[in-house]
Amino acid sequence: MKSFVNYPENSDFSIYNIPFGVAVFNKEYIACATRIGDIVIDLATLYDFGYFNDVEGINDNVFEAYTLNEFIELGKPVTTAVRKKIQELLLEGSLLSKDEKSIEECFYNLDQVKMMMPVHVPNYTDFYSSIEHATNVGKMFRNPANALLPNWKHLPVGYHGRASSIVISGTDIHRPKGQMKPADADSPVFGPCKQLDFELEMAFIVNKNTEMGESISTSQAEDAIFGMVIFNDWSARDIQSWEYVPLGPFLGKNFGSSVSPWVVTLEALEPFRTASPQQEPEVLDYLKFSGDKNFDIQLEVYLQPAKGTEALISKSNYKFMYWNMCQQLAHHTVNGCNVEVGDMYASGTISGTDSNSFGSMLELTWRGQNPLKLNDGQERKFIEDHDTVIMRGWAQKGDIRVGFGGVTGTILPAIL
Amino acid sequence: MKSFVNYPENSDFSIYNIPFGVAVFNKEYIACATRIGDIVIDLATLYDFGYFNDVEGINDNVFEAYTLNEFIELGKPVTTAVRKKIQELLLEGSLLSKDEKSIEECFYNLDQVKMMMPVHVPNYTDFYSSIEHATNVGKMFRNPANALLPNWKHLPVGYHGRASSIVISGTDIHRPKGQMKPADADSPVFGPCKQLDFELEMAFIVNKNTEMGESISTSQAEDAIFGMVIFNDWSARDIQSWEYVPLGPFLGKNFGSSVSPWVVTLEALEPFRTASPQQEPEVLDYLKFSGDKNFDIQLEVYLQPAKGTEALISKSNYKFMYWNMCQQLAHHTVNGCNVEVGDMYASGTISGTDSNSFGSMLELTWRGQNPLKLNDGQERKFIEDHDTVIMRGWAQKGDIRVGFGGVTGTILPAIL
Repeated sequence: MKSFVNYPENSDFSIYNIPFGVAVFNKEYIACATRIGDIVIDLATLYDFGYFNDVEGINDNVFEAYTLNEFIELGKPVTTAVRKKIQELLLEGSLLSKDEKSIEECFYNLDQVKMMMPVHVPNYTDFYSSIEHATNVGKMFRNPANALLPNWKHLPVGYHGRASSIVISGTDIHRPKGQMKPADADSPVFGPCKQLDFELEMAFIVNKNTEMGESISTSQAEDAIFGMVIFNDWSARDIQSWEYVPLGPFLGKNFGSSVSPWVVTLEALEPFRTASPQQEPEVLDYLKFSGDKNFDIQLEVYLQPAKGTEALISKSNYKFMYWNMCQQLAHHTVNGCNVEVGDMYASGTISGTDSNSFGSMLELTWRGQNPLKLNDGQERKFIEDHDTVIMRGWAQKGDIRVGFGGVTGTILPAIL
Repeated sequence: MKSFVNYPENSDFSIYNIPFGVAVFNKEYIACATRIGDIVIDLATLYDFGYFNDVEGINDNVFEAYTLNEFIELGKPVTTAVRKKIQELLLEGSLLSKDEKSIEECFYNLDQVKMMMPVHVPNYTDFYSSIEHATNVGKMFRNPANALLPNWKHLPVGYHGRASSIVISGTDIHRPKGQMKPADADSPVFGPCKQLDFELEMAFIVNKNTEMGESISTSQAEDAIFGMVIFNDWSARDIQSWEYVPLGPFLGKNFGSSVSPWVVTLEALEPFRTASPQQEPEVLDYLKFSGDKNFDIQLEVYLQPAKGTEALISKSNYKFMYWNMCQQLAHHTVNGCNVEVGDMYASGTISGTDSNSFGSMLELTWRGQNPLKLNDGQERKFIEDHDTVIMRGWAQKGDIRVGFGGVTGTILPAIL
């Protein structure tokens, strides 16, 4: 496929992608959008020009909106048809390619656009589905000889996170304050977190509302998943380790999570399916699945100090996940828990087996024992004030490249 | 104070209460409402009749809504003035008492009304703030000699719960299915929960949106709290005990929580303030507070089997809480976690010291060891299918009585 829009060979936003997001155009007008190369397209105006008239099931201008929720809720058959229509319209020789007026009114350069949160997130859950990450954490905080807890291989462990503090890429995050208990202290102390960390994750977004009591099986799950984003689950390790027993992470997490602006659909990720790791012991029936349910998505984390150049500090891959999205959603709903349009379900930190593929500073520096060396001689045990963390993700197969762009976030000093 | 509306002396909805809720009137029309005795008043129509014209700060008919969120967001000065105005209007000899047309159009009998969820809940947090409950659970599941965990007296332990499955009183809940690991089994099994439980809790509702990075101090907290409801945090003990290490409760909780329909304001609860328990060791500065921050609210739990009469199974009191609402909100936001209008913050199970004041079947039957005897010879270790759990709460001081009515929920069989 070749588009009439030119873009570099290594663009994440090729004609094979067609992601969805929400943009502020020229600082004044908000609408749902897609992107090809470095061009962002206003879908609400494109709708008004009649380009979606022949797509069945879309009878309102759902792109005239501050979130993708209304569009997503139309369901797979419609959102898939819309994506396909956009792809056709962007091909060389298409009707749109010759329609100068529509191009003038709908196409924007990147610098004319600011991205917003793509969806309103009614509920957010964070899983813990990388066996390498769970093993690393278990070794550090619990029992090195028996790092994985007894339930870990039987169910995708997860917990509810805070929806209110999920923010769009580029939003600054203040270093959290809180209670910590230093190993050598008798009592906890209060102050700015000293062990601020990122977690490299991906999250999927659900496209339907279910009733309480209803479950989504592993075979139904993909129909309920609109697409994915990259997710940075900022973590305050010292706050977390003092608070988390017995009810789980709380203030160590809920001060902020950052997501990438473009939702890449499952359809765009189709070419990158790959086999899931063997699960042993065998899982219970409701967690069984067939087919390739993992996705080969390359992930990178960069650390950019206030002064100095950005340094690549981790190379991981989403295909490492032990538990896949279908299992996560089936488990989450097997008890009748209802889901809502826009819900975000994050993977948990995505670590590989190599020490340079770990998805958090905690693991990369082994709890600060082995500081990371950055490009210009600086060292880091954890994230310092004014550091920027950048996560990038893309999938590539032959000439076909589909990516997420990135998610960035800068840590500002604690508010004292 | 005496109202022109007659009600029994022991009514929860006296002239001193004036709670807020959302009602469906005559099966067709939805609006915000208040209640006195057994009369439910349509506030949207009362607004249209001009009765709030002289209340400063309320310039739109925010009662024409499916939730209280818009009204609550007006903030304390306005919501307090509105409540006071309603109270005046309901007094003997008031303008309203002589306005037959308004009474005819705004006043409904209970049987003409169905209550809805009072607020949209963007975020839900559950605390664990009763020392008796935390001690009981610690004894049963962890170390009887050292039941409280080291962090418990230093911070109000809490976790994020599932907002999507909070439902209004009267909504049936299906018994959840899930993974459980019987003590004598090598591997987990799947099936309907066998240890279904309630948790007697109260929850407060927040009236403002804060920015990320902002904190609410203990002295600011009450201005940010609109009011309270009774909260039944249904729990599947067998699912919970297998899943909850290390990230906390998940499917053991998120299949449903039930709330009472009338939000009782902090102003209505003012006469029932009482001293908080002594906190020892001393808490960190950000958790210190002055004044009486606990509330003397009597709580009762009844179990109504499908056949048989309802039996009183627990008598507790909200004043037993070790951590108060101001401390909970200050802790939750001290790291910069933002709050949203309508957020619900539940107390955790409210147990007293006596064994008949425990707030869950888990504690009342000591994990099933001592079954409860109901009125008609039936016994219960946990909640059975078709059982209804009813929680009631009210405060009384001399002639002044302010109550919550109740929250009820019936357990239906698992969907197989």
